[in-house]
Amino acid sequence: MHTPTPRSPQCSVTRMTEIALPQHANNLGSVFGGQMMARIDVCAAISAHRYCGRVAVTAAVDSLVFLRPVKLGDIVLLGARVNAAFNSSIEVETVVHVEHPDTQTEELCVRAFLTFVCLDDQGKPLRVPPLLLEDDVSRRRSADATRRRELRLAHRTDGDS
Amino acid sequence: MHTPTPRSPQCSVTRMTEIALPQHANNLGSVFGGQMMARIDVCAAISAHRYCGRVAVTAAVDSLVFLRPVKLGDIVLLGARVNAAFNSSIEVETVVHVEHPDTQTEELCVRAFLTFVCLDDQGKPLRVPPLLLEDDVSRRRSADATRRRELRLAHRTDGDS
Amino acid sequence: MHTPTPRSPQCSVTRMTEIALPQHANNLGSVFGGQMMARIDVCAAISAHRYCGRVAVTAAVDSLVFLRPVKLGDIVLLGARVNAAFNSSIEVETVVHVEHPDTQTEELCVRAFLTFVCLDDQGKPLRVPPLLLEDDVSRRRSADATRRRELRLAHRTDGDS
Amino acid sequence: MHTPTPRSPQCSVTRMTEIALPQHANNLGSVFGGQMMARIDVCAAISAHRYCGRVAVTAAVDSLVFLRPVKLGDIVLLGARVNAAFNSSIEVETVVHVEHPDTQTEELCVRAFLTFVCLDDQGKPLRVPPLLLEDDVSRRRSADATRRRELRLAHRTDGDS
Amino acid sequence: MHTPTPRSPQCSVTRMTEIALPQHANNLGSVFGGQMMARIDVCAAISAHRYCGRVAVTAAVDSLVFLRPVKLGDIVLLGARVNAAFNSSIEVETVVHVEHPDTQTEELCVRAFLTFVCLDDQGKPLRVPPLLLEDDVSRRRSADATRRRELRLAHRTDGDS
Amino acid sequence: MHTPTPRSPQCSVTRMTEIALPQHANNLGSVFGGQMMARIDVCAAISAHRYCGRVAVTAAVDSLVFLRPVKLGDIVLLGARVNAAFNSSIEVETVVHVEHPDTQTEELCVRAFLTFVCLDDQGKPLRVPPLLLEDDVSRRRSADATRRRELRLAHRTDGDS
Repeated sequence: MHTPTPRSPQCSVTRMTEIALPQHANNLGSVFGGQMMARIDVCAAISAHRYCGRVAVTAAVDSLVFLRPVKLGDIVLLGARVNAAFNSSIEVETVVHVEHPDTQTEELCVRAFLTFVCLDDQGKPLRVPPLLLEDDVSRRRSADATRRRELRLAHRTDGDS
Repeated sequence: MHTPTPRSPQCSVTRMTEIALPQHANNLGSVFGGQMMARIDVCAAISAHRYCGRVAVTAAVDSLVFLRPVKLGDIVLLGARVNAAFNSSIEVETVVHVEHPDTQTEELCVRAFLTFVCLDDQGKPLRVPPLLLEDDVSRRRSADATRRRELRLAHRTDGDS
Repeated sequence: MHTPTPRSPQCSVTRMTEIALPQHANNLGSVFGGQMMARIDVCAAISAHRYCGRVAVTAAVDSLVFLRPVKLGDIVLLGARVNAAFNSSIEVETVVHVEHPDTQTEELCVRAFLTFVCLDDQGKPLRVPPLLLEDDVSRRRSADATRRRELRLAHRTDGDS
Repeated sequence: MHTPTPRSPQCSVTRMTEIALPQHANNLGSVFGGQMMARIDVCAAISAHRYCGRVAVTAAVDSLVFLRPVKLGDIVLLGARVNAAFNSSIEVETVVHVEHPDTQTEELCVRAFLTFVCLDDQGKPLRVPPLLLEDDVSRRRSADATRRRELRLAHRTDGDS
Repeated sequence: MHTPTPRSPQCSVTRMTEIALPQHANNLGSVFGGQMMARIDVCAAISAHRYCGRVAVTAAVDSLVFLRPVKLGDIVLLGARVNAAFNSSIEVETVVHVEHPDTQTEELCVRAFLTFVCLDDQGKPLRVPPLLLEDDVSRRRSADATRRRELRLAHRTDGDS
Repeated sequence: MHTPTPRSPQCSVTRMTEIALPQHANNLGSVFGGQMMARIDVCAAISAHRYCGRVAVTAAVDSLVFLRPVKLGDIVLLGARVNAAFNSSIEVETVVHVEHPDTQTEELCVRAFLTFVCLDDQGKPLRVPPLLLEDDVSRRRSADATRRRELRLAHRTDGDS
């Protein structure tokens, strides 16, 4: 089987900017959690698509933590990048900040780790490019992702509804 | 501080039914991952609201795994229930099935574990009702939820982008 | 022509749960009438699909009455079931309640009677399964549906715009 | 109590034009029934608002019949007008046509009769203006609407779910 | 090459009516600019489709000016018509008014000039019907459109980001 | 009257990334023109907001040209920046590219010039910060914007529908 050319995390970096509007709101004047998850998934899917050079589909959310609500009117920044590549899947980290243009400050609102699978034209998983790990930060990110994946695989039989 | 009356998991059971339409689709004829996450969040938020008797907001997704794509035209069943109650948060499990009316069969598509916080009128977290654990299945669900929470709290410093 | 196997009303029972959000609102803080109709149609279409084992399309709304507005933040319960089966159409009744989790009470908001037609792969109407009427309530529901259908057919030439 | 000035049906005439897009579609390449109902309700609500000079809310759909599906790409014409005014409610008739610009022909797709109530600033029903009936067509429309209203009121206890 | 039959501007006149709802709003209680542009484009596209007898796609917005915000609850009137026909493109003018039913007055909110191209089944531009200019107003509109087109073509190399 | 501190064009640079999904489509498998305009307006509004440090509303689209359709599945890049600042308005240029991850190429699809006004808490226009023009490209962009503004002001009486 052909092994794709290794790629740098940089090629997967994806940035989105949004403004929080009433159509995104819950009844508390904040962005609805599910609405934010949907945008995080789009941002991460584009990051995965860029990394693999093909359409990628969401396989799992391993962790997604809301640290601060996003209020209506906030400028919202989403950023995604690939943390680790496995045989046929990749982990993408997405962070969401709100930006305050008057004070030129930002606050972290959400951090999420999603796993994607790249598909061929018949919808079968493809081998993904290996990730180049050229500095300590990249190596630590990849090691953390590997640990999250092992936890997920170890507990995949949880629940029985 | 007042401790609320304990409640049974049954009072939190929430069921939604949907049909997968083109406006929910990705470019592969399936429901877009983020669209599915948004519906899972709504279902889980109603389950949390019912359990606490108040509005609840999403604090985290601890795990959400896509086992099978949902295709356009599929009838989609979402079901949510509270697995565990902690001091000021609860874990809600949500499962998504597709139903095939012609063969009267169902397939599991997504399983997710979300954490919610119930809020008072000033937006501050409230103590949640203790969960009645009256059988082995309920006790196991609560123990699994406790383990997931510990993992999340242990790794909350992950990432530094 | 083949007659399908008779079916019980139970197999058509469909339940949906929603939370009323700002994107569903009119300018009075309630859910817009048309938005509610759209959700009622989805719930009834799934009920018809389950009953017939095939996709069904809306042929008519014979009556839909708003008894009480649905306010933003309300938990909304929709329930649908087949009332009667005719040669190639079925009547589906849908009711909408709001639920108040703090007081564990419900209020009826909308009652609607819709007629659906099940279609084959060429888009032609199919003979629908006969409905099993095994108790007095089912028989009364079917008789009421038959009367509504007769009224509709008697007045189908109304209007001339 | 003050009686408002009588008004002509003409002042309520409302026209909308749409193009049927993929986001309105069911899985058969037609506009979803519920989506069409939502647009019919908007058109009729504007007609009622114009007639009463105030916001009006949907009280009932007395009849709505789909005569022909609306296909993706079709140009859709909606037209609404007031048929009858009662003490505190009005009946609005809405018809939907598709237009074929290449052949400059139109086909009737939906006919609907909706009842609206006009509200004051406290949300209480207001007395509506009497309708001027100055020709035979207007008198027949009003008489038909009166009959539909009597049928609805006679059967308002239907159903008991 | 076949020249299509000349057509009157009247055959392109398109009217839409809307009510401004919370899902269209920005955070100032007005309709979001982009939401209004999207509706203007739909109205103009239908006008172009009617004129050409075929699907038309937006090629350019030559000018679109917001003169007054549209507030939530406003009844919104859109009107479009063809101003000029060139070889393979047409200019469509769209104006947006709000209507105040209580005072039966209207105010102009937006004026826009868009250029459309009609496409054949392979997506190639088609020759469009010549426009009949039978009065001074029509001739002036066509002359103004011609001037706007020349300005656009003269400056089409603007910008280099 | 207080003059705000001059600002660099850099502080207004805004980038959005999207994936073209079926819910954005016209009936030709491309993104609907109006949908694209709506996203361009959001991107430009954020750029204006960042530049002024306050909410800005769209005053005009001076030119928006579609050079190439955006197809379903395309990754869409939007970029906006302030070109010129006048007394109480600014011009924002927005460009849209599609990106092909497999070949790592991009194509320009839309170029647009929009004018925004920044508002105070009473909704009145505010004086905007002067723009620092520190290189030839910036000076040329500002001069082009000034010319577009003069054209718009010269022809603001166009049309009379």
